[in-house]
Amino acid sequence: MIDRQVTVFAPATVSNVACGFDVLGFAIERPGDEVTARFAEPGATGVVIDGITGDGGRLPRDAARNTAGVAAQALLTAVGERRGVVLSIAKGLPLSSGLGGSAASAAAAVVAVNALLGAHAPLDTLIACAIEGEGLGNRSAHPDNIAPALYGGFVLVRHPHPPDIVQLPVPTGLMAVVVHPELEIETAKARALLGTTVPLADAVRQWANLGALVDGLHRADFGLIARALEDTIAEPRRASLVPGLAAIKQATMDAGALGCSLSGSGPSLFALCRGEDSAQRVADAMTRAVAVHIGRESQTYVSSISPRGAHVISSCGL
Amino acid sequence: MIDRQVTVFAPATVSNVACGFDVLGFAIERPGDEVTARFAEPGATGVVIDGITGDGGRLPRDAARNTAGVAAQALLTAVGERRGVVLSIAKGLPLSSGLGGSAASAAAAVVAVNALLGAHAPLDTLIACAIEGEGLGNRSAHPDNIAPALYGGFVLVRHPHPPDIVQLPVPTGLMAVVVHPELEIETAKARALLGTTVPLADAVRQWANLGALVDGLHRADFGLIARALEDTIAEPRRASLVPGLAAIKQATMDAGALGCSLSGSGPSLFALCRGEDSAQRVADAMTRAVAVHIGRESQTYVSSISPRGAHVISSCGL
Repeated sequence: MIDRQVTVFAPATVSNVACGFDVLGFAIERPGDEVTARFAEPGATGVVIDGITGDGGRLPRDAARNTAGVAAQALLTAVGERRGVVLSIAKGLPLSSGLGGSAASAAAAVVAVNALLGAHAPLDTLIACAIEGEGLGNRSAHPDNIAPALYGGFVLVRHPHPPDIVQLPVPTGLMAVVVHPELEIETAKARALLGTTVPLADAVRQWANLGALVDGLHRADFGLIARALEDTIAEPRRASLVPGLAAIKQATMDAGALGCSLSGSGPSLFALCRGEDSAQRVADAMTRAVAVHIGRESQTYVSSISPRGAHVISSCGL
Repeated sequence: MIDRQVTVFAPATVSNVACGFDVLGFAIERPGDEVTARFAEPGATGVVIDGITGDGGRLPRDAARNTAGVAAQALLTAVGERRGVVLSIAKGLPLSSGLGGSAASAAAAVVAVNALLGAHAPLDTLIACAIEGEGLGNRSAHPDNIAPALYGGFVLVRHPHPPDIVQLPVPTGLMAVVVHPELEIETAKARALLGTTVPLADAVRQWANLGALVDGLHRADFGLIARALEDTIAEPRRASLVPGLAAIKQATMDAGALGCSLSGSGPSLFALCRGEDSAQRVADAMTRAVAVHIGRESQTYVSSISPRGAHVISSCGL
């Protein structure tokens, strides 16, 4: 008899999206993390992690200190499940890359455990448990990676706790380019650069742009989307973390991108583009510029805004 | 022979709209200001104001110090017109009321002069000239009253200079209630209360709400509109200017409003409501609450979000 088990893929996510610090995010098709869940031996309780690949041995195997483990445990508690669960994690996302790796593992874990249990928990519960998992890394985190990792698409977090998530429309032809240079930036360090207050004038400009971006997405107004993709808050204060950021952005915009900024707290960069041809040209230009200005290898992804959040990719015995 | 002349009405406008400090505004049907323009005697140049009613003698008659006069002169200069223009102004809007009175006079003046000249100036020129007129009162002003006074409807000012104006959709049934208590608040004093920096956390919450409001207007999602109508920036810092503001808001919300906040820098208050019956109940509750908590007379207006900005209401000889 084959043990009942389920494997879930959760995608990389780009958060902040220039004008939406802490509130906007979108999912791309790949890369992502995979979490496999199965029941533990009879009598066992709680969550055990029996293996992690792709992290170079750096993530905690102790479930209580692992985002996927904490998220899974939160779901077991939320639904009153007494059976134990074993997780295997295949990290497709590089650590500290700004691609929402913690969120992907947490989202994949809750969806996998939910499927293993029979998929009865409502989405509200799943998101709350995934947030609890990701919270390991940053307890004040906004679910701007968790929400797109779970729901897919382009999302706005109107309120983080309890989550009030708005799924934004995605115009036909809107494409993302994501470049991950082989640098690591700790989210906590990137956040510290922001301070706790911002000039009112910068904030006004940010919310004007965010409102315009939402309108542009609804109307498929690519000109307005392009004008709105400006970050007056996080990027200027974090630019020092990514060498040559201004030059890389310039090369990206010169290649025809609608906009370009840091993905999350970086070092990954994203661009939004109109159409696949444009996205491919922008990807080439960004990759070259990263090589020249950062002097590191990089991985480049060209993707639609993926409508699929965390989802089952294989299962048996269910 | 009857002299050629034209009279334009420009509506009151509600700016800020809770979550859109300095960037959001909408027009209501009435009250508003009227400006009549005619040519001066042959040989005269520039702008002369030959009368103002409804201001209790308080507004400058010197065109160079009057918002309508400066706006009209800006348009004459912009289009290279050498003939002189005479303006008569009928203020329907109370001074320092938070209803966009300066913007209404400036918008009415440019539309009136433009019509007098044959209506050839593009909208971009009209808005720039109206902004220049309103700038008399506050040179750093954002055109969040000017834009709806000119365009009508619900607008987002993505960028003030040069103006990048986004006309937002208005869901069927969205109604405004505006109550003007007989207080005056100087815009400059209200602005000074804000300071020049804001907590990042408050700013994040504001742009999350603004993005959600824009989405809610597009989807006609009244629940989301209601949740988004929260001001974390201006209202908390200005609450001291309006006695009993919290109690008035509570009465307004208890009567079924979607949201309620200061109109501009106050003292007028606005509420948004779903449907005329709800708006009428809210209007009654707000009016009573203002009487109880502010202890002043007030004028109350129930209105659709008016699709009409400044427009000609009478003309002859054109």
